[in-house]
Amino acid sequence: MTTDHLPDAPHAPHRGRPRDASRDRALMDATLTELQLHGYSGLTTAAVARRAGVSTATLYRRWRSKEDLVLGASQTWAEELGPDHDTGSLPSDLAALLHDKAAALDGPSGRLLRAVLGEAAHNQALADVLMEQFVLPLQARVEALLARAADRGEIPPGQDPLVVGEMVIGPMVSHTFLIPHTPGSRPGTDMAERLLPYLLRALGARTA
Amino acid sequence: MTTDHLPDAPHAPHRGRPRDASRDRALMDATLTELQLHGYSGLTTAAVARRAGVSTATLYRRWRSKEDLVLGASQTWAEELGPDHDTGSLPSDLAALLHDKAAALDGPSGRLLRAVLGEAAHNQALADVLMEQFVLPLQARVEALLARAADRGEIPPGQDPLVVGEMVIGPMVSHTFLIPHTPGSRPGTDMAERLLPYLLRALGARTA
Repeated sequence: MTTDHLPDAPHAPHRGRPRDASRDRALMDATLTELQLHGYSGLTTAAVARRAGVSTATLYRRWRSKEDLVLGASQTWAEELGPDHDTGSLPSDLAALLHDKAAALDGPSGRLLRAVLGEAAHNQALADVLMEQFVLPLQARVEALLARAADRGEIPPGQDPLVVGEMVIGPMVSHTFLIPHTPGSRPGTDMAERLLPYLLRALGARTA
Repeated sequence: MTTDHLPDAPHAPHRGRPRDASRDRALMDATLTELQLHGYSGLTTAAVARRAGVSTATLYRRWRSKEDLVLGASQTWAEELGPDHDTGSLPSDLAALLHDKAAALDGPSGRLLRAVLGEAAHNQALADVLMEQFVLPLQARVEALLARAADRGEIPPGQDPLVVGEMVIGPMVSHTFLIPHTPGSRPGTDMAERLLPYLLRALGARTA
């Protein structure tokens, strides 16, 4: 896992006029909306510029290509999970993690992930962003949570953190992406709540 | 869930010369390969025709558009899970289901699913194919397996079949799609084996 492929352009100092933060945000908003409406294949830089209310020349000063624009949107929208914190027990640690991840999946982060997942299969820079912003933060929180629960004597030691991590994120991802949902529903959050007792039993939790 | 959006063209009687099955298969092979290499966005009907060794005119006689071609490939490659059968116990029923699903995900079916998942977010016909070929067969097998296990007294009754279904498929999907894997590895199968004991405990199985 390296970041060699990540272009540094989005974060590089901008020559000339100082960057307009609200215009950048409008471009990132517009990119996410176009991705949702038309997918990666149907997104055009012209439509993004139009939706953001800027000229395509302005867009191209900041983003060199459609690929670069979507990479920037991925870095913007793939939400960090937030720091791990000890809530005092496995059930509440796990509920907090599920809730954080579900909220991300039910929002822009989830829509972005779904739109770019196929593209990341053959785009290393995009795959690196997904790894760093979706996979590694979740794995780190799962490992910390399991270590605390084993220390407290709540679960047997020697759990498989990779499997537990996939059991946390996988059902929410497949439920959100593969099943049709009514607009405004929160499939990740719904799944998180129904999943918690199953996960506690899977871990052999004393409290389950 | 209706099939109103499914175009009937791929299965409609062909006028003129009888259809050449080996040429059809070559076109479906070529579509999957192009999807894997370039994604939905990078796939062109010209490249598919070239790879399959047919003219674009021949391709267009059978498939009216790129969208139609990818829909046909989805119907071809989204593997049926195979019939449910009673192996005599929950652990072996569940192992058989995990193995069947992992084998599909590690093969063409998984590559197809990853390539079209984002596109299905805004393409109803594609979403319908995924629902009918990925989601519903899995749910049916999970429901049958849970009912048998409860009848045998292996697990408590009243399980949530939707959650159990997502716990079967979700971890394999997220592990296969979000983590980089070396060519030739079988991430779905690897996850299926490590997942089984966790699932048995999650269900409160006496045998766990």
